[in-house]
Amino acid sequence: MSRSRLEAFSDGVIAVAITLLVLDIHVPAPDTGSLGHELARQWPQYAAYVVSFVTIGIIWVNHHWMISRLAQTDRTILLLNLLLLLCIGLLPFGTSLMAEYLRADQGQSLAAAIYAGLLLLMSIAFATLNRHILFHKAHLLSEPIPEARRRQILFRGVVGLVPYVLATALAPVSADITLIICASVAIFYTLPIASGGADPA
Amino acid sequence: MSRSRLEAFSDGVIAVAITLLVLDIHVPAPDTGSLGHELARQWPQYAAYVVSFVTIGIIWVNHHWMISRLAQTDRTILLLNLLLLLCIGLLPFGTSLMAEYLRADQGQSLAAAIYAGLLLLMSIAFATLNRHILFHKAHLLSEPIPEARRRQILFRGVVGLVPYVLATALAPVSADITLIICASVAIFYTLPIASGGADPA
Amino acid sequence: MSRSRLEAFSDGVIAVAITLLVLDIHVPAPDTGSLGHELARQWPQYAAYVVSFVTIGIIWVNHHWMISRLAQTDRTILLLNLLLLLCIGLLPFGTSLMAEYLRADQGQSLAAAIYAGLLLLMSIAFATLNRHILFHKAHLLSEPIPEARRRQILFRGVVGLVPYVLATALAPVSADITLIICASVAIFYTLPIASGGADPA
Amino acid sequence: MSRSRLEAFSDGVIAVAITLLVLDIHVPAPDTGSLGHELARQWPQYAAYVVSFVTIGIIWVNHHWMISRLAQTDRTILLLNLLLLLCIGLLPFGTSLMAEYLRADQGQSLAAAIYAGLLLLMSIAFATLNRHILFHKAHLLSEPIPEARRRQILFRGVVGLVPYVLATALAPVSADITLIICASVAIFYTLPIASGGADPA
Repeated sequence: MSRSRLEAFSDGVIAVAITLLVLDIHVPAPDTGSLGHELARQWPQYAAYVVSFVTIGIIWVNHHWMISRLAQTDRTILLLNLLLLLCIGLLPFGTSLMAEYLRADQGQSLAAAIYAGLLLLMSIAFATLNRHILFHKAHLLSEPIPEARRRQILFRGVVGLVPYVLATALAPVSADITLIICASVAIFYTLPIASGGADPA
Repeated sequence: MSRSRLEAFSDGVIAVAITLLVLDIHVPAPDTGSLGHELARQWPQYAAYVVSFVTIGIIWVNHHWMISRLAQTDRTILLLNLLLLLCIGLLPFGTSLMAEYLRADQGQSLAAAIYAGLLLLMSIAFATLNRHILFHKAHLLSEPIPEARRRQILFRGVVGLVPYVLATALAPVSADITLIICASVAIFYTLPIASGGADPA
Repeated sequence: MSRSRLEAFSDGVIAVAITLLVLDIHVPAPDTGSLGHELARQWPQYAAYVVSFVTIGIIWVNHHWMISRLAQTDRTILLLNLLLLLCIGLLPFGTSLMAEYLRADQGQSLAAAIYAGLLLLMSIAFATLNRHILFHKAHLLSEPIPEARRRQILFRGVVGLVPYVLATALAPVSADITLIICASVAIFYTLPIASGGADPA
Repeated sequence: MSRSRLEAFSDGVIAVAITLLVLDIHVPAPDTGSLGHELARQWPQYAAYVVSFVTIGIIWVNHHWMISRLAQTDRTILLLNLLLLLCIGLLPFGTSLMAEYLRADQGQSLAAAIYAGLLLLMSIAFATLNRHILFHKAHLLSEPIPEARRRQILFRGVVGLVPYVLATALAPVSADITLIICASVAIFYTLPIASGGADPA
């Protein structure tokens, strides 16, 4: 099975999910008070939009790399990819939840934990698919990758889980810290240092 | 007519429909009560999201297979495919209906029957398109498929309707049973056994 | 300029517009009355969904044909295509308006006129783009089309406007007649007779 | 890295963003008054829809040109492109804000400034990506572009920022003037004169 429709479908789901994020930014009703005040009050929505947009964007870049190594796909790859898309598809909900509750009187910790937990889940799904491709489906790769390089790619994917584990675990302490960690991860992956050579995955 | 735009358009519609499912998961208003309690209460939304996401995902995988057999398409194939997409496009509504009414005081059976009925309709549209391609448009296939194999593919598609007939018929007995049957179908098709060889359609 | 991105972008916009139609079908709130009764009451939403879905689907099939004749595109074609997409993008609004007002106490005629007017506008944009390609950009066609055939294609496109002119003009008489005409057009184009040979555009 | 998935993903995001604009046009509730009156009252929604749709459409055409010059992409290009998409993704919000407040009792200036500011931001992101490609990644171009031509392309992109700077700066004077400037830019780029030869970017 060729990889082109896998890419097309994944691109579609990721593009829709990333664009739906904007629906979480509400236009204040004209009669609720000064527009400036109302827009300022909902800053968590802008912060969450940017963090989620960049995070999904980076996942897309990495997905691009991961799949481009394949000459072909098979059923298991399609299903693991579906699992990854299922997690990405939940992010507009997680983002909205985080943005709505970051300044609420209750529920901040739970909302932050769910948000970071969804990012963690997405990263685990990504690492699982990557591991499956690199170690179980090496015969489908378009060109062989040395064992050491494969271990290195996987290792970096697993290291990438650590900040999300932290962000989830620290949510009961402070929802702000959780958001700051998630934002830092997004910023980190946009820095040149994160690419660590030719392959950023 | 080449099949590439048929694939691109179908991928687009399926990708949007699968991603719109998340809009059915609501963020509880901050003043309605404990967030944890409110989120727990809306578990049917998560269950319905997962079942519908996986089901649409599997339909996409199978659609992929079905269309990949074609060297070309024609007008009838485009129109039958449109009918299939029309059914898929209704699933966000059916999913939302099911999730909203599963724990309501009335309407559970009807909501469940409509949900399973839409899945059944989608499967019938799929089988119809598959039958049309395999038996009426065999000259458009990229390589010939033996009669016995074609019958086998079609037979499995028709067998796949049975659980949805059951799920729809049992909705008056219990909406929960309907959801469990639909979930079981989704899980079954992700198991290796369901692929039954190289071609899962 | 190659035509592939024009196709990809158009497929994207049309796929999103056709799938957004489902958002017009509302899940009745559990406390508003019997679910069966409420769902039956909103039949105009289902009718409008099916008519609009099939109409957009047929426009997509015809767009497919129109663009497939081109070897290349240019700026004017891109801009006329954008105008067509702008009209298609308005259909979820027009569909929702029609569905909401078909059984309302006032506004039915206006809503129906706007709905049919948008379909008319879309058809005019389509015919304009087709005319521009066939008569002004014949050098961009992948293979020459005889003058007589080009006139025939254009003529059929213009004839296709007539029912929408009628549907718009008859809206003050009856919104139901308008919807029936629009539905008839959609059904007509799915009949084999409508293809009139190899090329349905 | 090939440019095809960059194009596919960008097409997806732009197609979704442009199609989501229609969600800002509301169907008046049947019991709020005469439908004609209510639809007339919300003319800013139609104006904003058309201006934003055409503007995003032109950005897509120009994006098409910019990327088509590339033989390959790299990580920085992907990230700058992501920044551009992030700005485009915000336009449905900006458009809705502008439309909602253009005739409100307060907040018109701020809403208009945010709308024009988002368009300015998008244009800056576009010019930045263009500059990066033309001057820093000239080795990735599919064919070399003379220095003078590259300066000319960039110059025109920077000149294109001026009206949005004006539109943003004049928002405190009049929100109407801001909308008129933004509309004029959209109209200007659809005129043949704007193409200035073969390459409109």
